[in-house]
Amino acid sequence: MKFCPDCGAPVQLRIPPGDTRARAVCTACGAIHYQNPRIVVGCVPERHGRILLCQRAIDPRRGYWTFPAGFYEIGETLAQAAARESLEEALARVQIGSLLAITHLLHAAQVHMTFRATLLDDQFGVGVESLQVGLYQESQIPWDALAFPSIDFALRCYFADRSAGREQLHFSTAERAPAASATARDSREL
Amino acid sequence: MKFCPDCGAPVQLRIPPGDTRARAVCTACGAIHYQNPRIVVGCVPERHGRILLCQRAIDPRRGYWTFPAGFYEIGETLAQAAARESLEEALARVQIGSLLAITHLLHAAQVHMTFRATLLDDQFGVGVESLQVGLYQESQIPWDALAFPSIDFALRCYFADRSAGREQLHFSTAERAPAASATARDSREL
Repeated sequence: MKFCPDCGAPVQLRIPPGDTRARAVCTACGAIHYQNPRIVVGCVPERHGRILLCQRAIDPRRGYWTFPAGFYEIGETLAQAAARESLEEALARVQIGSLLAITHLLHAAQVHMTFRATLLDDQFGVGVESLQVGLYQESQIPWDALAFPSIDFALRCYFADRSAGREQLHFSTAERAPAASATARDSREL
Repeated sequence: MKFCPDCGAPVQLRIPPGDTRARAVCTACGAIHYQNPRIVVGCVPERHGRILLCQRAIDPRRGYWTFPAGFYEIGETLAQAAARESLEEALARVQIGSLLAITHLLHAAQVHMTFRATLLDDQFGVGVESLQVGLYQESQIPWDALAFPSIDFALRCYFADRSAGREQLHFSTAERAPAASATARDSREL
């Protein structure tokens, strides 16, 4: 941020009184502009044991695979957002289940939140942000061509929990942009 | 947002190509500025059965009660943020436990995420954003003077789970600014 979104004057990075972090402060009107992490919300839709995956048609990571996920928008719940992304990217209607995984992407100022989900019928298709959409068995997952570490992490947790007959919430943290698909993994981090 | 944070020119609200929502688009450089919900993260610190609560010294809701909570910042995990808020508001060191509650505040474009926590010792104090800080039994909670619906919701879930001997994750949604402490409550919403 270089200019004040309220008045258009230049901003300066400085620590406001009573704060501990540098913020963008307007040199004219004095407004303080906070920047906070964004939420990316998605789900792992299952039907008859198979998982709905999309091949991305857009950057970043065009050509790589993901489950439906995208930025959380104002005016919706997290579950509504996950269902909306399934409809947009895979023309799929889903029922959202329990929260599966939270991955902190510190370098990107994002938190990825992924729910379990059920694909409600056999109807799905290729949304405008996808090249291909399909249902895949665990053995067919393209592990080497997943779009983001959070996708890899959530899918691994999903299958581990499914075979153990449990539904847990898992946390992970990625501190740097991934070279391939490296991520620090813990079931419970601090 | 009235002016472009990148170049200072006026922005216009319009739907970018391929998008479905109106965004602030710069009339000069064309940059699209997305606005997304912010995360407020907190925890319910317990020690010997009692809960650490703070009376707020700042607006909004000055004089009302809360557990330690605040805006999630760039560069930290959710659990680190919850621990940081405990240190800032109550000079308290906590160990963060499981995720307790998620409340969507649709009117405020916020998601409040609350963890269970353990207060690590008997040391705590009054942070600069607090008027008073203390440990309270369930029967001493000031239910009529809690700061936000998300605080009320998380505390009620906390005590219900504690007496049932379980740790679940609970969701709620508040669609309007609270008159007193009204919130729509569901254990699982869509």
